[in-house]
Amino acid sequence: MNEGVNRQFYLHRRPTGRPTAEEVRRRDAPVPQPAEGQLLVRNYYLSLDPAIRGWMSAEPSYLPPIALGDPIRATTVGEVVESRHPDFAPGEFVVGLHAWEDYSLSDGTFLMKVPADGKYPLHYYLSILGAVGLTPYFAITETAEIRRPGETLLMSAAAGAVGSVGGQIAKILGCRVVGIAGSDEKCAWITEELGFDAAINYKTCGDLVKAIADACPEGVDIYFDNVGGAILDAALLNMVHGGRIVFCGAISAYNGDGKVPGPLNWWQVLARALTVRGYLVSDFFPRWPEGIAQMSRWLDEGRIRFREEIHRGFENTLEVFLELFDGANTGKLIMDIRED
Amino acid sequence: MNEGVNRQFYLHRRPTGRPTAEEVRRRDAPVPQPAEGQLLVRNYYLSLDPAIRGWMSAEPSYLPPIALGDPIRATTVGEVVESRHPDFAPGEFVVGLHAWEDYSLSDGTFLMKVPADGKYPLHYYLSILGAVGLTPYFAITETAEIRRPGETLLMSAAAGAVGSVGGQIAKILGCRVVGIAGSDEKCAWITEELGFDAAINYKTCGDLVKAIADACPEGVDIYFDNVGGAILDAALLNMVHGGRIVFCGAISAYNGDGKVPGPLNWWQVLARALTVRGYLVSDFFPRWPEGIAQMSRWLDEGRIRFREEIHRGFENTLEVFLELFDGANTGKLIMDIRED
Repeated sequence: MNEGVNRQFYLHRRPTGRPTAEEVRRRDAPVPQPAEGQLLVRNYYLSLDPAIRGWMSAEPSYLPPIALGDPIRATTVGEVVESRHPDFAPGEFVVGLHAWEDYSLSDGTFLMKVPADGKYPLHYYLSILGAVGLTPYFAITETAEIRRPGETLLMSAAAGAVGSVGGQIAKILGCRVVGIAGSDEKCAWITEELGFDAAINYKTCGDLVKAIADACPEGVDIYFDNVGGAILDAALLNMVHGGRIVFCGAISAYNGDGKVPGPLNWWQVLARALTVRGYLVSDFFPRWPEGIAQMSRWLDEGRIRFREEIHRGFENTLEVFLELFDGANTGKLIMDIRED
Repeated sequence: MNEGVNRQFYLHRRPTGRPTAEEVRRRDAPVPQPAEGQLLVRNYYLSLDPAIRGWMSAEPSYLPPIALGDPIRATTVGEVVESRHPDFAPGEFVVGLHAWEDYSLSDGTFLMKVPADGKYPLHYYLSILGAVGLTPYFAITETAEIRRPGETLLMSAAAGAVGSVGGQIAKILGCRVVGIAGSDEKCAWITEELGFDAAINYKTCGDLVKAIADACPEGVDIYFDNVGGAILDAALLNMVHGGRIVFCGAISAYNGDGKVPGPLNWWQVLARALTVRGYLVSDFFPRWPEGIAQMSRWLDEGRIRFREEIHRGFENTLEVFLELFDGANTGKLIMDIRED
């Protein structure tokens, strides 16, 4: 990092497929100055999430699209270096929705202070004590509406950041948990290390509808959807009457034109009287402290395991981000941009 | 009707589009004899519903497909003419899931007795006191989860049998109700006669997304979907955060290959944190008497209006059925097959 310079990746054009350096460009900008009511954060870690690809599209969504010319929106953890905001002081650490850049301005909206007491590393607040933990926490404890012990929960992208933690939470709450992942190594990790009851390698299993039926002989009570597409379609044909689908993401469609088409087997939602709920962790923002407290307890008790993949080198941010869409990463992707 | 002959329409081949007389054929069969535990119903009225088209497809659904060679499944009301079942006696009137035929056997499953005291005409039990009334009754009172007075409910196929009654129930329960229909005459009927707050003619309104936005300036809290397709897609772009969709039917897709593809704007389910519920009135079967009692009260109080279109001539059944897919009918379609 070069003092006085704010390195940024910004959106030059909207990508239609995988974003390239043509669409997401690097530039050096001046370090911004906080106005009254604002504060300046120096970002230490950037969170790389599939959702960022959605924000690059013009499609209406739960957040406005990233404007052309604006830096790429992302959750970050960093240090307050200057403050003209009454609630924040220099030296405090915060998590907020900022951008792929060294310095971000904030007016305090959706900004959360985090302890820097060393009990947990700072980057945990972008992973297990951040959205990676809280997304599945509220999805499983609230949105999935678990009704009785022993219900079968089917998790897609089960070796991914949200899926691997979500499956463990569902196990803690008494579900039988079956994961779908894209390699034998991932399948072995979720069953042998994380305690999933079964795993399906969707790339080698052949008929996925049948593979799910074999792994879920009593049907799927809850399908946790991170991927959409063909896996959602196969899950639909295995749901029990009255089953629930948590619609948390649709990564299989993110590098299209921004549209995320519904499942071909949509009729099954009616035929099986399913409930599908669109899920946004931001709806639970007021309850994040409760979620962090519970996740910390499970972490301290050794009941939740997770992986982070921390990369260095700000210049590599876009390239590392694209790993998400290859299934190449094996843990929550974080960029450490402090020292290069 | 010719005593001793059982006229039937049966499924010869599965249709891929609109069913024709090639696929749905006429035959005369012998009148069946009830075995022990069975009874024989002489059908007076046949109910013609969009769902029947779905049962002609091989696609898995909430009921098994009609088997090739079997008569076309339909709800009927008729008279018990012979009984070897302890709960039913000759001369009683019953509603059941039978077929397009003069005589049907039943083992009493899902068979409901109806009064023939003359207070309501028998065919009401195929319409306002049958599925036409009870489908919207439980959908609006239970599945739609109305949360506060003044919520906006958008009804598709609003001049159809289910839509027109559902809109009136939602009005009784305090909703602002906007209907979508396919002609100015239908729009006038639902606003002027039935009390809908506004109506949209989707064939002439131009941009349907904008037309819905204009008619629902605070957004759509509840969308009641009978049609799927482009209207569902337009509704999705007008839903409030946390809105609900009752998935009751998808008539726009019924004459395809049996697949009912999901909406193109599927992402909005996540982006707006919507709840989509597949709805089957059969799930409420144990509560039908409660629904019939309430619908009768509203009927007696003049708070619910509805239209029936009763056709005669058994031979015309298939032709009349196809009116459903042209939007040509203006009320619940019923065949009276007693006297021809």
